[in-house]
Amino acid sequence: MIIPFHVREMLRRIKARYDVDRTPQQMSPKGEGFLPLRPSRTADSKTVARFWEHLKPKASEADQAEIADPATVAASETYSANIENFIGTVKVPVGLVGPLRLNGMNANGDFYVPLATTEAALVASYARGAFAAGRAGGVSTAVLYEGVLRTPAFVFQSLLQAGQFVDWVVGNVEALQAVAEATTRHGKLVSLEPFIDTNIVFLICRYTTGDAAGQNMVTIATDALCRAIAKDCPVPIESWYIEGNFSGDKKASALAMVTGRGRKVSASITLPAGVVEKTLGTSVEAMLAYGRVANLGAHLSGQLGAQAHYANGLAAFYIATGQDAACVAESAVGVTRMEPRGEDLFCSVTLPNILVGSVGGGTGLPSQSAALNILGLKGAGHGTALAEVAAALCLCGEISIVAAIAAGHFTRAHESLARHR
Amino acid sequence: MIIPFHVREMLRRIKARYDVDRTPQQMSPKGEGFLPLRPSRTADSKTVARFWEHLKPKASEADQAEIADPATVAASETYSANIENFIGTVKVPVGLVGPLRLNGMNANGDFYVPLATTEAALVASYARGAFAAGRAGGVSTAVLYEGVLRTPAFVFQSLLQAGQFVDWVVGNVEALQAVAEATTRHGKLVSLEPFIDTNIVFLICRYTTGDAAGQNMVTIATDALCRAIAKDCPVPIESWYIEGNFSGDKKASALAMVTGRGRKVSASITLPAGVVEKTLGTSVEAMLAYGRVANLGAHLSGQLGAQAHYANGLAAFYIATGQDAACVAESAVGVTRMEPRGEDLFCSVTLPNILVGSVGGGTGLPSQSAALNILGLKGAGHGTALAEVAAALCLCGEISIVAAIAAGHFTRAHESLARHR
Amino acid sequence: MIIPFHVREMLRRIKARYDVDRTPQQMSPKGEGFLPLRPSRTADSKTVARFWEHLKPKASEADQAEIADPATVAASETYSANIENFIGTVKVPVGLVGPLRLNGMNANGDFYVPLATTEAALVASYARGAFAAGRAGGVSTAVLYEGVLRTPAFVFQSLLQAGQFVDWVVGNVEALQAVAEATTRHGKLVSLEPFIDTNIVFLICRYTTGDAAGQNMVTIATDALCRAIAKDCPVPIESWYIEGNFSGDKKASALAMVTGRGRKVSASITLPAGVVEKTLGTSVEAMLAYGRVANLGAHLSGQLGAQAHYANGLAAFYIATGQDAACVAESAVGVTRMEPRGEDLFCSVTLPNILVGSVGGGTGLPSQSAALNILGLKGAGHGTALAEVAAALCLCGEISIVAAIAAGHFTRAHESLARHR
Amino acid sequence: MIIPFHVREMLRRIKARYDVDRTPQQMSPKGEGFLPLRPSRTADSKTVARFWEHLKPKASEADQAEIADPATVAASETYSANIENFIGTVKVPVGLVGPLRLNGMNANGDFYVPLATTEAALVASYARGAFAAGRAGGVSTAVLYEGVLRTPAFVFQSLLQAGQFVDWVVGNVEALQAVAEATTRHGKLVSLEPFIDTNIVFLICRYTTGDAAGQNMVTIATDALCRAIAKDCPVPIESWYIEGNFSGDKKASALAMVTGRGRKVSASITLPAGVVEKTLGTSVEAMLAYGRVANLGAHLSGQLGAQAHYANGLAAFYIATGQDAACVAESAVGVTRMEPRGEDLFCSVTLPNILVGSVGGGTGLPSQSAALNILGLKGAGHGTALAEVAAALCLCGEISIVAAIAAGHFTRAHESLARHR
Repeated sequence: MIIPFHVREMLRRIKARYDVDRTPQQMSPKGEGFLPLRPSRTADSKTVARFWEHLKPKASEADQAEIADPATVAASETYSANIENFIGTVKVPVGLVGPLRLNGMNANGDFYVPLATTEAALVASYARGAFAAGRAGGVSTAVLYEGVLRTPAFVFQSLLQAGQFVDWVVGNVEALQAVAEATTRHGKLVSLEPFIDTNIVFLICRYTTGDAAGQNMVTIATDALCRAIAKDCPVPIESWYIEGNFSGDKKASALAMVTGRGRKVSASITLPAGVVEKTLGTSVEAMLAYGRVANLGAHLSGQLGAQAHYANGLAAFYIATGQDAACVAESAVGVTRMEPRGEDLFCSVTLPNILVGSVGGGTGLPSQSAALNILGLKGAGHGTALAEVAAALCLCGEISIVAAIAAGHFTRAHESLARHR
Repeated sequence: MIIPFHVREMLRRIKARYDVDRTPQQMSPKGEGFLPLRPSRTADSKTVARFWEHLKPKASEADQAEIADPATVAASETYSANIENFIGTVKVPVGLVGPLRLNGMNANGDFYVPLATTEAALVASYARGAFAAGRAGGVSTAVLYEGVLRTPAFVFQSLLQAGQFVDWVVGNVEALQAVAEATTRHGKLVSLEPFIDTNIVFLICRYTTGDAAGQNMVTIATDALCRAIAKDCPVPIESWYIEGNFSGDKKASALAMVTGRGRKVSASITLPAGVVEKTLGTSVEAMLAYGRVANLGAHLSGQLGAQAHYANGLAAFYIATGQDAACVAESAVGVTRMEPRGEDLFCSVTLPNILVGSVGGGTGLPSQSAALNILGLKGAGHGTALAEVAAALCLCGEISIVAAIAAGHFTRAHESLARHR
Repeated sequence: MIIPFHVREMLRRIKARYDVDRTPQQMSPKGEGFLPLRPSRTADSKTVARFWEHLKPKASEADQAEIADPATVAASETYSANIENFIGTVKVPVGLVGPLRLNGMNANGDFYVPLATTEAALVASYARGAFAAGRAGGVSTAVLYEGVLRTPAFVFQSLLQAGQFVDWVVGNVEALQAVAEATTRHGKLVSLEPFIDTNIVFLICRYTTGDAAGQNMVTIATDALCRAIAKDCPVPIESWYIEGNFSGDKKASALAMVTGRGRKVSASITLPAGVVEKTLGTSVEAMLAYGRVANLGAHLSGQLGAQAHYANGLAAFYIATGQDAACVAESAVGVTRMEPRGEDLFCSVTLPNILVGSVGGGTGLPSQSAALNILGLKGAGHGTALAEVAAALCLCGEISIVAAIAAGHFTRAHESLARHR
Repeated sequence: MIIPFHVREMLRRIKARYDVDRTPQQMSPKGEGFLPLRPSRTADSKTVARFWEHLKPKASEADQAEIADPATVAASETYSANIENFIGTVKVPVGLVGPLRLNGMNANGDFYVPLATTEAALVASYARGAFAAGRAGGVSTAVLYEGVLRTPAFVFQSLLQAGQFVDWVVGNVEALQAVAEATTRHGKLVSLEPFIDTNIVFLICRYTTGDAAGQNMVTIATDALCRAIAKDCPVPIESWYIEGNFSGDKKASALAMVTGRGRKVSASITLPAGVVEKTLGTSVEAMLAYGRVANLGAHLSGQLGAQAHYANGLAAFYIATGQDAACVAESAVGVTRMEPRGEDLFCSVTLPNILVGSVGGGTGLPSQSAALNILGLKGAGHGTALAEVAAALCLCGEISIVAAIAAGHFTRAHESLARHR
């Protein structure tokens, strides 16, 4: 049978649920009885209670008590700047990794890193990596680059107008830069590069964003820049869009891997052979051998870059510290390297797209703010250090998983740590 | 100056922080005074308190109270199956989207969807999309495919042994399948495909995983399969690894986009022109025009697939419902289509890699479990429905953002909703 | 200036050619005076002469003599099965690499390989690699996989019909297979896998194609299959297309890298340290060190796979032996590995998409046929051996360039060999 | 059976060729009797004859006569600047497409385009596209960007030295630029951008190259630049490489798609509905509908960009005009767009990586030079025009194939044109 078994098996399962009379009807649009929810952009105990009324009886009072607990409801107003239709909070368990010793340009010393996750073994694995790194004298880190992109698109009648437009933009760039920067205290437009596809021009706008992750900041600045262009540019613009889906916002992209988006950070360490053996229970040779296989797997499966599981550490770190967890999709990209250094093992990670801020976003919420205090990296002046901690954390995760897989311990760790469920 | 300004500007910023005497010393390994934390895999009020002792004075008692609140500490044991070194919980605000009307093969009816995020405007944007979808009769959905991959790698002396190994595996596949499936009640091995690169063989093992996301399930099953191979196969194996970094676990990959990983789900709707105009404040033509630009941007920036911001909806949904948030990195991939249907607008999304479960992972934790109850999709029998809700949600997000950008409202929404910060 | 210099410089160059009055007119459509060429699908001395009449006076009689030389014109009819509007031949210089010693499953012994190229140093570089390989006992090769893809697309009203269609196809697959295979003596349909995106179904049809490259063979077979579906399938099909631009035909694609397209071939060798030193003038350590950098470069620049210059060897080999040179775009993909083996250097290449045939295409043309005779691989029975020669050749090219760059000789070789131009 | 049939079938075929005693021996290295060829970098009738002696008896005298025909042998010296171990020429049939009407910034008027290919139907298909384009008033083209990349890599002890190196390079860039440009009359270094991965620095060097494709030119210039760095830079360099496998040379890469490599060219046209119907035998609606499917197929199969078959036109054009055919691997990348313009069809292609020259490479060889004369684009001053012809040709090919597939004619054309074989 030339149809693969798993395809036929899937078809069998779908057909088991399929009723020739009922299913087509069930999958058709139905207009009747659609009662939209009245939205609420502010939040207080009354709006919270009102929403829960809608959720009964599916959700019980016990459910309500878990999400809309008294402390949460009391802080409704605090939360309302970060969310709409607020009904409470979900509680994500936090585990501690550390001390993570950093020898960074921006982050220096021993840090305890709070990670929020529901996946057993994750914290233990990163902690093991951090322990090995500490034994080896700590992780060297540096922010190599900063720059959040926003890439508006302008559509013209033809290539000719597109070219005239680019000429005008280049001729008026200082004025446009002033307009963009007037919208923000901390944002600086450090590059503007036009990219033409026949009659469409993308403007690759690159900003530094101070200590914030800066996604809203660059949107507002670029919007002002676009409106100034639309008002002043004599070349007729058919339409323009604040984002041409080109910047890599919220998704892995080759462009962002190449140009960087957010903060590009490198973290590295040389693990002495003895540390690999005693702390990680394997050998330099075994880690190098698996590193080669893992690198091959990355190529053959068409990954962007090559790494094992940056997303695990980043998601847990972003959630704990009030970052935008959706940015994990773009941040979890980069290259992990494992190389011999004499008898020892050189390991490095470079993540081109770390999007974190020590101000803005969810960093001011009660528990997230507390998590930043654990790190000692709350508020102005700590954006780059926070990015270095994120990269060093990823390095620890890579060391730990490569060692575990090389040594054949990976499954056992997951079995024993997820044992209670 | 042929060095771009943004490069020079970055260098200037780095040099401003660089001290020729101090920085090199600061970035060197330092062995002294490294005091590792005593880890704890179980949790109770005492272990929690012990960890907080280490965090002082950086973290204050007020910080401790936000993370290690009494309800959280009381539930320490509950959390301890999902985390190590437990110190409390981070509270992520939850907003409500809905009713989201689904005409799905597996999810049918009106759903309220809890989303956990700290990003202002996110819930409002998805709610707007869900409102438009409801006005248009609801979203059609279906799980098209299921199958979680695990891809162990086996290394041989040469190609010749690799070939003999493949021959042996194919000849013994039923026995191996039995070994793998003996480790799990719900997992089924539905495909096993060898992939050779000279002397290395990756075994692409594809499982259905019942109602669970299934990542641990397939690891354990595959580990058993590998151990059986290692024990019985007469071809000498140099080394083997439970995962060859080939399966796409926790990262966007072309392989997973092609083969699917987790659940592949399609969601679609035809929006009548009137709904686009009244509910979304723009026109079918304008949305199609922007859709073409956004699709071009996706190609030119080297994305995997083409979409606007699946990651926003998925991250918020995964966090609220106790899924593995790190899987956003692999799930936020797919293709959004916008096409004319007469005067109306056909929209669809297909996400090949949705990793959700209605059981397992964080789904049993108190507030996550409550969130699943809001959906009415807690426990056995709801895995596929949950995946369809996730895809329909992504569709709503795509509709809303495309409409907002096409109409020029995108920036305004973010400005006004993030206004309090 | 935040606009990069190279952008401004390019704008300056464009503006230097731009005339505000003349250029817009020059770039506008012009309907007048368009005299189409009368096409000719057959060829003889008269049709050739007729075409040359049109080419005067731009092309001189001397030009005509170079392209439409007497031997070429005499063979017009022979060429006319491979080309339309025939005006002669272009003469591409051929250099010899070899003996290339192969220890292959299909290709065994010492081969002289004719390469057609106009790039100085290319033949010398591959010859050097072949020399080193010969000194090391020859290259091990094997065809790992065969299967040319054709992926027709079927469009339906909705997902529901798409699903019903898949069900029908699976239920009728043996009949469809028979229809497809009835069109060809050598082609076998070995897999048919439906791939759904909402209302569109791609059928991934995979064929073995005997000794031919097989692109036309699979098109014709798939066309018959599609027509049978269109005739017999009761599910209403809105439209169907012989190719959904999914198969990877004539382009690099992640799908084809993963699934293979054409012949997937591995070639490997272990180079003794002494051979690396004496023959290649560098050391194992130096080649490994550069190999790591080159692998990093591959990841960071977003290549498909990781290799140095497969395209050089493949293009020259395809042109010399009458293969489809356009397939270089899809064939020049894969992974080159360099790894330590004790003191020695293990090197391998795996190319998943080699498209060559020992019959069909241009293999029967006079000089191409002679080139195949040099290899001893002309005609039926030699398709797989030919693919193994191609892969072994690529391995030699990788060895040579990695050694040259590692040793710092790369530029010098190009300078001296291209010196006369 | 969970092993797919095509895998088992392949295994069966391999085993049919496998002999348990003979095959392992056959695939092992063999040192005995390896007689290397004496290479020859110059060519004359004697060296040609000497090589043919080695090729007997596999290659007959008739074979020799086809490749080493008297005219070819007489021109041996001419060829010898482009090839080593010269044994003659392979004759690739040339067909004529045209007139191709161009309304370009650099190429203007009606061009006859010689295409060298052995694939039946290719010339006819491009000719049909050119005919439709001519009927529609011709193709608008412009070179949007020029810049060939060379990306040497420098390895340091650690990140710290890498940073110091970048600082030194930026501080000495004018001197380095002067060194690079001193090696070439036509090359200009227009951008130098450092890219750091921990301890490795890639220098992205971007050159304009006059009318040449310029690959050797930029290698030589960059080599001089690197040697100047190695001599003068006080930061200790562990090793450096002329190319870090980062530039996209001879391979499709996301980097090159984003940054351009070679010449980036756009070609576009609006086809009136009447032309689509009469000339192409289909409708605007049908072409748009298929265009959407083909675009989806591009995304789902993980192509770089989205196009149908640039490689066909480019390979035939590069071979005919003496370009580097291996560059098809990097040039055959870009995005084809098809959009409604009222009742008519807007079509465009943008190719970021066209590598052609009107001087250098194989452009001076007898028949290649004649082919350039047919175009009227031989010698200095025609590099950009040549690139515009290449892009316009690709546009014609896209129009033709999309129309053929939309109309269901694709297979028939291939059947009838390849009928004689």
